[in-house]
Amino acid sequence: MIYFNSDYTSGAHHEVLDALLRTNMEHTVGYGLDEYCTEARNLIREAVGCADAEVMFLVGGTQTNATAIDGLLRRHEGVLAAQSGHIAVHESGAIEASGHKVLTLPEYDGKVLAEDVDSYIKMFYADDTYQHMVAPGMLYISQPTEYGTLYSLAELKALSDVCHSHNIPLYIDGARMAYGLAAEGADFTLRDVAHLADVFYIGGTKCGALFGEALVVTNKTLLAHLFPLVKQHGALLAKGRLLGLQFATLFRDELYRRIGEHAVQLAIRIREIMRKAGYEVVIESPTNQQFFRLPNMTIDKLREDVSFDYWGPRGESESVVRFVTSWSTTPEDVDALERLVG
Amino acid sequence: MIYFNSDYTSGAHHEVLDALLRTNMEHTVGYGLDEYCTEARNLIREAVGCADAEVMFLVGGTQTNATAIDGLLRRHEGVLAAQSGHIAVHESGAIEASGHKVLTLPEYDGKVLAEDVDSYIKMFYADDTYQHMVAPGMLYISQPTEYGTLYSLAELKALSDVCHSHNIPLYIDGARMAYGLAAEGADFTLRDVAHLADVFYIGGTKCGALFGEALVVTNKTLLAHLFPLVKQHGALLAKGRLLGLQFATLFRDELYRRIGEHAVQLAIRIREIMRKAGYEVVIESPTNQQFFRLPNMTIDKLREDVSFDYWGPRGESESVVRFVTSWSTTPEDVDALERLVG
Amino acid sequence: MIYFNSDYTSGAHHEVLDALLRTNMEHTVGYGLDEYCTEARNLIREAVGCADAEVMFLVGGTQTNATAIDGLLRRHEGVLAAQSGHIAVHESGAIEASGHKVLTLPEYDGKVLAEDVDSYIKMFYADDTYQHMVAPGMLYISQPTEYGTLYSLAELKALSDVCHSHNIPLYIDGARMAYGLAAEGADFTLRDVAHLADVFYIGGTKCGALFGEALVVTNKTLLAHLFPLVKQHGALLAKGRLLGLQFATLFRDELYRRIGEHAVQLAIRIREIMRKAGYEVVIESPTNQQFFRLPNMTIDKLREDVSFDYWGPRGESESVVRFVTSWSTTPEDVDALERLVG
Amino acid sequence: MIYFNSDYTSGAHHEVLDALLRTNMEHTVGYGLDEYCTEARNLIREAVGCADAEVMFLVGGTQTNATAIDGLLRRHEGVLAAQSGHIAVHESGAIEASGHKVLTLPEYDGKVLAEDVDSYIKMFYADDTYQHMVAPGMLYISQPTEYGTLYSLAELKALSDVCHSHNIPLYIDGARMAYGLAAEGADFTLRDVAHLADVFYIGGTKCGALFGEALVVTNKTLLAHLFPLVKQHGALLAKGRLLGLQFATLFRDELYRRIGEHAVQLAIRIREIMRKAGYEVVIESPTNQQFFRLPNMTIDKLREDVSFDYWGPRGESESVVRFVTSWSTTPEDVDALERLVG
Repeated sequence: MIYFNSDYTSGAHHEVLDALLRTNMEHTVGYGLDEYCTEARNLIREAVGCADAEVMFLVGGTQTNATAIDGLLRRHEGVLAAQSGHIAVHESGAIEASGHKVLTLPEYDGKVLAEDVDSYIKMFYADDTYQHMVAPGMLYISQPTEYGTLYSLAELKALSDVCHSHNIPLYIDGARMAYGLAAEGADFTLRDVAHLADVFYIGGTKCGALFGEALVVTNKTLLAHLFPLVKQHGALLAKGRLLGLQFATLFRDELYRRIGEHAVQLAIRIREIMRKAGYEVVIESPTNQQFFRLPNMTIDKLREDVSFDYWGPRGESESVVRFVTSWSTTPEDVDALERLVG
Repeated sequence: MIYFNSDYTSGAHHEVLDALLRTNMEHTVGYGLDEYCTEARNLIREAVGCADAEVMFLVGGTQTNATAIDGLLRRHEGVLAAQSGHIAVHESGAIEASGHKVLTLPEYDGKVLAEDVDSYIKMFYADDTYQHMVAPGMLYISQPTEYGTLYSLAELKALSDVCHSHNIPLYIDGARMAYGLAAEGADFTLRDVAHLADVFYIGGTKCGALFGEALVVTNKTLLAHLFPLVKQHGALLAKGRLLGLQFATLFRDELYRRIGEHAVQLAIRIREIMRKAGYEVVIESPTNQQFFRLPNMTIDKLREDVSFDYWGPRGESESVVRFVTSWSTTPEDVDALERLVG
Repeated sequence: MIYFNSDYTSGAHHEVLDALLRTNMEHTVGYGLDEYCTEARNLIREAVGCADAEVMFLVGGTQTNATAIDGLLRRHEGVLAAQSGHIAVHESGAIEASGHKVLTLPEYDGKVLAEDVDSYIKMFYADDTYQHMVAPGMLYISQPTEYGTLYSLAELKALSDVCHSHNIPLYIDGARMAYGLAAEGADFTLRDVAHLADVFYIGGTKCGALFGEALVVTNKTLLAHLFPLVKQHGALLAKGRLLGLQFATLFRDELYRRIGEHAVQLAIRIREIMRKAGYEVVIESPTNQQFFRLPNMTIDKLREDVSFDYWGPRGESESVVRFVTSWSTTPEDVDALERLVG
Repeated sequence: MIYFNSDYTSGAHHEVLDALLRTNMEHTVGYGLDEYCTEARNLIREAVGCADAEVMFLVGGTQTNATAIDGLLRRHEGVLAAQSGHIAVHESGAIEASGHKVLTLPEYDGKVLAEDVDSYIKMFYADDTYQHMVAPGMLYISQPTEYGTLYSLAELKALSDVCHSHNIPLYIDGARMAYGLAAEGADFTLRDVAHLADVFYIGGTKCGALFGEALVVTNKTLLAHLFPLVKQHGALLAKGRLLGLQFATLFRDELYRRIGEHAVQLAIRIREIMRKAGYEVVIESPTNQQFFRLPNMTIDKLREDVSFDYWGPRGESESVVRFVTSWSTTPEDVDALERLVG
């Protein structure tokens, strides 16, 4: 069986695992205060071009979003997000559990428009009753989005500008950041992200680590008491070094970049194979997630050899499916798919 | 340098790590629905003697406590705990962050008395203004406690009885359960724990795993919607199999028992060494944490070769220190200590 | 100046005020345990035809909604409501502040459809990822709605049926219940409300009281610990008797019914006046709120003598305005309006 | 029957009630934006000597405490308070419900010592694990306290100094402020309170109003978004003018001062009567609450004619009781008590 279900179905990139193995018997202090976390912090600061950024390592994405958003918002504020945003749909109400409303914006293939952010905020304050409503206190976007699409640098700049013109922070969920950075036609870098966002996270779980996300705070006054906040959210790993080790490995020798490129190249190949076979590409995604419209009979046949996600019916005899690549996808996997589809 | 600081300063027991390595390239579904989690669940059900217990795997202790307690309490209720209980002191307000007060009881070497629980609840309901106060909605204890001490089976039974006589659940924090089960003179088993507690967790982080805690719910109506609750608390690991693999390894071939016995035997040796050297044993602990009163000069000297925790001054020239053993402590570590102290 | 802005711009109906005056120097116990609260409770139980309903008196609407909803939902659940529902728009995030998401449904003149509730819940549980999403745990509706419209008895029955078929409670916000009961063509009674809803509140603030809402719980197991919950939400009035006195007055001698009829009759007269004058009735409301489309010039002119609410522009030279009547509106006010408009 | 149970067992001072009556049929805007609230705000600003203080009117004490404390604290912080503080004991967990721990300090007749505050904070930051604990983020005191005792000006200054030296705000719960200002030997004024505290409230409910508390914010940057916060806490009264009218009446012509003086004089008379009759004064209170130790037989006898609160047994045959005076207590009430006791 070949697997294209998701980017978190296998373990960790072997270099990451090697680092854990190599250091297993060492003794270090806990809670992220060890030398591996320090090294990882410095490597990330360098990668994002911000020498005094705060970097905290957390375990998972929902946890990281809930912790950061809770810390960024004041009590009367909510977080703006695309209707399709992960925090709006798939986090079991973690944001609301910390007391904050998710204020939804229209989504266009998973992306929000700067002009929609602008008009939301303007209309909010133009409403006589705005003090009775939840104030937009920050913007959440994911790069790449839940649908594999990507904001261009110009779009990121526009979102950053509109946020800062209204004096609210921009937060970027980078669960799949490696695949965004390596995306076909990507015109932004981590330095751009750090420059434009106030807070963001670099995903590890889906990008080669066993688990872990690196929260980067460039506008540090906004999250001044991050450590106890992380602990309060149950997000502080006792053996913090496990996170430091993994991120140090990912950012030493550009492993994070290599992982992204590997997966995106294979995803683009899959797209070409599908297109060539005559299937519709449903969302124009330049990253490691690809969405196709296939006849249900083809789906049933393919499933004998290939595992992938079903997204929903389209008409009576066709459906949309998702194919995802990762660091663990091999060229041989794609070759095999080609033979089956071609 | 020899390390006796804590039981989470090194990585994972080699059998655990081997399991992660061996399965690294396998693809499984996420969120704890994979076969390794199923296997671990079944092994734990067998170990606790409760075939239909619910078992969920979470990442860390604070997270597990906060999630379970939030799920167990109704809005107007708080959780009873020793003044020295982890949730009362060292969880950065995680319990309060979910809306609940920690109602503290006197502690005796870290333990609470059944009669104190009883009188607290009786006095509460005898107070005319009790509806204006936070109702005691459950009892939290740790076994072993934060001070390394242990409840006897009779004490556990008394606590269970008093809770159930007042119709509140008993929750046991088993962060160091392995060391409690293997403690000197321990007269209880996991089956007893499962029989007497409504909900408890079996600690992995401090007992041989890289990370992870197994939450066991024997009284399942109390936590009927555990999955979304865990997700909402940011405690659902995407690659849930990492937890399943580790707990399956710990409970296959009795590794969990072996780890506990190994560490406790070395801890008892350390106690004998210290006692023989004329130092006061401050708390009578039968588990892997040992507390001694040493002259400050001795402490300074020892620290050149040994790493351990400082707990506070006793008089002008002495202090209390903590020595902790774990699966990664070796007989050679203790031999070396003996040479330094003896 | 004549006022048609809202139903809470003046004080209290004189019978209510008389009751407060008459008893001012009496001493009673606090927190709703006094004889006036007992009397009011019994009068309401009789009015709703449910001898063992729980009745609690709270101060305001947002507070009552937030308290009841927080008590009704489990941690992982959210509340279904119309997009235009008060809790979804105008409560400053009070529901989210207690940890719960408002799950919005399409609205049709402020009302939700039973079939939309049904399909939301069915689609929710049909989604493979539903455990990662916020479960619909109850339905909130307002009767009459924020737009003055009214659910018919058949519609209420359908909503009650769909909720109970999915095993979730129906909660009704009756901030303007008096005007709904007395509405043109109303075919339901308080007994129907009590029979169909699990929990609801009878509004006092907008219906003749100085302030106060009567929360009625007919399905008592759902809100078993209401007193401390109310206190915890800061909603327990020390001099609870003020609420008991007001509701006893409203429900003795059918004052609540009379207030509703008075206001609705005047609202209908206003509608006839406007229609006769050629203005469009924007929403077909049978209650005390009426919405008209007027030329902006007419609005400016009218405002010299009449105070009413502006709702928004319609086209370039017209706007929608709201006229509200209450117990304090007089026939003379409407006569004067007729002279100005006619 | 004569009533000395509490200061909220009867209605409102007649001047307050007159104001409500006189204005009942007037129409004003809601939510505290009316002219009466403006007048009351200005009168209070004048009384506290702070022309630009923010003043918000809320309904009750628990609500006011919960709203202000929630607004003042950051997520990782708790509130310091006496073990006997109202927020620590009698608010049904309202503070915890908003996510914050109450950190208790020793109490001495209901008061906390500046040196205890200082040492708590110093010891907190001296603890290596402080980031795992709840940071002291503000100090709550009540003036007068729950036991009727009073902080002197020097004590208030010391508390203010210690708070500000540690950069945390001082919040004063003034539920019975009128009785504190008029206390025997009181050496502080409202101007002192406003000067020393960052936020405080002037109690109405227990001091002559039907209900209502005036929250005064002198350090306005600390509570910059008070309106939506109040609304979110369900504490925004629709007919806000009811609060404005009452506080304008209390602060016009010094009614607040007169009410305090009236009650305190009668309380002191009661103390003299009791002392003369040979009964122990249990707490030296200079305010409207007095605590005596009486033989149980005397208590039973007295209760035939007098209503007062029982506080608890002292020895086998005696008990502590509380007598409270208010604006509604009359000299004739005290005369009658004198005849019964003397």
